[in-house]
Amino acid sequence: MRWLFLLILSIASVTSRSIIPEIHSANAVSDRLIELVTQGSFRGVTYNRLAALADTIGPRLCGNESLTNAVNWVKDVMSSEGLDNVHVEEVRIPHWVRGEERALLLQPRKTKLSMLGLGNSVGTGPQGIRAPVLVVRSFDELNARCAEARNKIVVFNPQCDWKTKPIACYGSVVGYRVGGASSAAKCGAVASLSRSAASRSIDSPHTGVMAYDLSYPKIPAGSLSVEHADMLDRFQQRNQSIEILLYMEAQTLPDVVGYNLVAEVRGSSKPNETVLVSGHLDSWDVGQGAMDDGGGAMISWTVLSLLHSLNVRAKRTVRCVLWSCEEFGGVGADQYFNAHTNEIPTMSIVMESDLGVFHPQGLQFQGRPQAQQIIQTISNQLASINATQVVSGGGGEDISPWMQRGVPGASLLNDNWDYFAYHHSNGDTMNVLNSTDVDLAAAVWAVYAFSIADLDDLLPR
Amino acid sequence: MRWLFLLILSIASVTSRSIIPEIHSANAVSDRLIELVTQGSFRGVTYNRLAALADTIGPRLCGNESLTNAVNWVKDVMSSEGLDNVHVEEVRIPHWVRGEERALLLQPRKTKLSMLGLGNSVGTGPQGIRAPVLVVRSFDELNARCAEARNKIVVFNPQCDWKTKPIACYGSVVGYRVGGASSAAKCGAVASLSRSAASRSIDSPHTGVMAYDLSYPKIPAGSLSVEHADMLDRFQQRNQSIEILLYMEAQTLPDVVGYNLVAEVRGSSKPNETVLVSGHLDSWDVGQGAMDDGGGAMISWTVLSLLHSLNVRAKRTVRCVLWSCEEFGGVGADQYFNAHTNEIPTMSIVMESDLGVFHPQGLQFQGRPQAQQIIQTISNQLASINATQVVSGGGGEDISPWMQRGVPGASLLNDNWDYFAYHHSNGDTMNVLNSTDVDLAAAVWAVYAFSIADLDDLLPR
Repeated sequence: MRWLFLLILSIASVTSRSIIPEIHSANAVSDRLIELVTQGSFRGVTYNRLAALADTIGPRLCGNESLTNAVNWVKDVMSSEGLDNVHVEEVRIPHWVRGEERALLLQPRKTKLSMLGLGNSVGTGPQGIRAPVLVVRSFDELNARCAEARNKIVVFNPQCDWKTKPIACYGSVVGYRVGGASSAAKCGAVASLSRSAASRSIDSPHTGVMAYDLSYPKIPAGSLSVEHADMLDRFQQRNQSIEILLYMEAQTLPDVVGYNLVAEVRGSSKPNETVLVSGHLDSWDVGQGAMDDGGGAMISWTVLSLLHSLNVRAKRTVRCVLWSCEEFGGVGADQYFNAHTNEIPTMSIVMESDLGVFHPQGLQFQGRPQAQQIIQTISNQLASINATQVVSGGGGEDISPWMQRGVPGASLLNDNWDYFAYHHSNGDTMNVLNSTDVDLAAAVWAVYAFSIADLDDLLPR
Repeated sequence: MRWLFLLILSIASVTSRSIIPEIHSANAVSDRLIELVTQGSFRGVTYNRLAALADTIGPRLCGNESLTNAVNWVKDVMSSEGLDNVHVEEVRIPHWVRGEERALLLQPRKTKLSMLGLGNSVGTGPQGIRAPVLVVRSFDELNARCAEARNKIVVFNPQCDWKTKPIACYGSVVGYRVGGASSAAKCGAVASLSRSAASRSIDSPHTGVMAYDLSYPKIPAGSLSVEHADMLDRFQQRNQSIEILLYMEAQTLPDVVGYNLVAEVRGSSKPNETVLVSGHLDSWDVGQGAMDDGGGAMISWTVLSLLHSLNVRAKRTVRCVLWSCEEFGGVGADQYFNAHTNEIPTMSIVMESDLGVFHPQGLQFQGRPQAQQIIQTISNQLASINATQVVSGGGGEDISPWMQRGVPGASLLNDNWDYFAYHHSNGDTMNVLNSTDVDLAAAVWAVYAFSIADLDDLLPR
C-alpha cells in the first residue's frame, strides 16, 4: 500500500428491499462460496498459496526478477487450474535497486543504525557521506533552522500519537519520508534520514517510496528505526555532537518490462461487462511482502478459483488483475487503465484489497448512495461469518484512476489496526497473517464480486 | 535476566498490625521518598540517567570495554553525589566476543536470515558451515530423527502459546537455546539454530547464553527470528530442500577483570546490618540493554540518591550493588557472595530488579510467613501510587546464592507482560520504557529498602 486515502465514515444501515430482488437469488451461491473456502476443499488454500509464493520467491520489488518469477508462477497455476483468459499485459516499470547500504553512527559512539534506503533515492557514491547531524521534528523546525542544516545529514523525527490516531499519523509521518530529502536539500543538507512510519517497532526500519523536487539537488534518503531516530534526538537535546557515515549503493536503472497478470471467470450472459477484483503482486524488497500485498493479490485470485471450482458463472465477467509496481505509484495500474479506458462504461465496480487480509468485518465502498444501498443489501449474505459492515471510503492506489472516472470502488474492511507495525519492513511476513482470517477475507471478496457481477444491471454511478 | 525463576503465587492479604508498629513511623519518610521521585526534583532523573548511559555507552556485554566504561561512569556520578563507600570489587568474568556473523539461506532461495549468535558459542571457522537443514519442533522429534541430523544444521522450532502462558513458554523455548547445540551435536549435526524465545516479533532475533555438554563436539549455535524459523519449517513441510551457509566469528577469549559496583547510605544505628538493592549493569551486546537490566540497575542507584538527597539514614545500611556479568550466569554476583558470606547473618534482605521497570504493582517476595506479614504491612505505604500488591515468588539470578542460604529476597512486581518481546534483542532500547513508570518503580524500590532497613530487627528468616 503506497498511499492510504481512507476516510472511514460509518454509515447508517440502509434498506433496499424493493430495489434489487435479484440479489436474493445470489444467496445460494454465496453460501456455497463461504462454505467452500471456510470449511470445504479451499480451506487454507489461499494462505498456503501465499506462503509458497512468499517463502520460495520472497519479496517482489518492482523491476526485480523475483516479481517476474511471481507473475509466472501464479500464471502457470491459474492456467493449470483452467481459469479463463489467463494472460499478462506488458507495462513499463521503474527499476530502482537498493544495493548495499548502512548508516554508522560515529559520534558520540560507534554503532550501526537500523536503516533502510527509500525507493527512488540516489546513492551516496563509493565513499559514503560522512557528516554531522541536525535532528528536526517537523518541516517548520527545519525551516526555522535551515542555515544549521547546511552540509549536514538532516534527521526528521516527527512525533505522533499512533495509538489514538494511526491513520492521521501515517499520513503525517509519510510526508517526511516522501518529501524530506528535497526539503533538506533546499537548506543545503547532504542527506536525509526520516523516522520510520511505524505504529510499533522492535527496532524495525520501514522503507517506502520518496520523491525528489527537481528544483534542488538529489540527496540520498533513508529511514531510521523509531528507536534510533529517538536516540539521535536525545543526543541533540544533550548537546552531544552527532556524526554519521551513510553508505548507499541505491540507483535507478533503466525502466524494464513488467506484467499485470489477468485472469477471468467469464460472464454467462453479459461477458463484456466486468467486476474487477485486484491486489498488487509487487512488494518492497524486505520481509516477504505477505501483508502488502501478497494477501490482497491471493484473495483476488481465490475469487476466481472458487467460482471455477463450483462451476458457477455470474451474468458478468469477474476479472482478477494482479498489478505490477504499485509501490512506486500505481505504475502498472495506470498503464492498464490507459489501455482499457474503453471499458469504463462496462466496469461495474473496481475492487482492491491492499490494507491487509486480517479478520474481515466487511467492505469499504465508494460510490453513489443508490449503489451503496445495493452493497448494503448484499452484505446480508455475509451474516454467517459476521462480516456485514459497510462503511464509506476505501479504494486503493491501483483502482483510483477508475474511481476518478466515476466507477464505484471498494476495498476490504478488516481488523488492520496493526498494519503499520509491519508494512514496508522486514516484519511483513507470513507470521502476521493467519489462515482462518485469510479464508474469511477471501469469502467476503468472493461474495461481493459474484453478487455484483450477477446483478441485472451495472452498479449505478 | 538470564533465568526466570518466577512462580507467581498470589497470596491472600495478611494483616500484622500487632507485630510491627515501628513500620508506621517510616510512613513520613516513605511519603517524602515517593513525592521526591514522582513530583519533586528527582522526577525523570532515573530515566534520564539510564538514557544517557544507554545512548552514550550503549550495550554492555560482559568482558567488553563498554561495561567497564559504564561502571566508571556510574561510579564517578555516585562519588560526586556524595554517596557513602562508593567502590568497585574486582571479579573475574568471561570474555565472549561475537565478531561478524551471518546466516544465509542458499536453498530454496537466497536470502539473509535474521540471526544472532548465542553467548558462549564457538565460531564456524573462516569458511563458515554450509550444510542442509533439518527442522525439528522438539527434543523428542530430534531424538526420533537423530540419524537424519548427521552433517546437517539442526533448526529447533518449538511451538508455544505465548499469549496465554508466556512464562512457561519462555522456560520451554529457552531450553532449546541453552541445550540445543549439544543435543544436535549428539546426533552428528554441524551447527544448531534455535527459534528465538520471543513472545512477539518483528523479525527480531533474540540472543542469550548457551552451554555445551562436553561429552559432545562443540558446534556453533545461533538463534533465528520466529519468522525465519517458521519459514524454514514450512519449506521442510513442503519437502523443499533447505541449505544454509552459517558464518560466525564467535570466540571465547581469556577471562578479564570485571567490577561489581557498590555504594551505600550507611545506617544510623546498625550500620553493619544491610539491606541490599541491586540490578545488573551488564547486558547483551544488542539494543541498549535498557530494560535488561539498565532499568533495574538505575532504580537501585536511585534508592541511594533519594535517601542521600533527603539526608535520611535508616537504622541499617542500604547498599546498592550493580552486578557484573549476570548474563553469563550471575558470574560477578557469585564471586561477591563468596567474598561476603560473613554478611549472611546481617543481611536483612536481598533485592534485585531484573524483570523490567514497567508500571509497578508492588513486590515479589520470597521468605518466611512472618517476614511476608511485615512486607505486607510496609506495602500500605505505597497506597498513594497504587503499588501495594505483594506476591510470593520472585528473586533474581544475582541474589539467588543469598536466598539459597535463607536470606529473604525480593524483586519488583511490574506490568512486564511485554518483556519477552524485547529482551536480548535489538528492541531492548529506551523506547520500551517510560519515565513516569520508571519513577514509580524507583519509588517502590526505595520505600521497601528504607522501611526494611529501618525496622527494629532484621527480617525474620
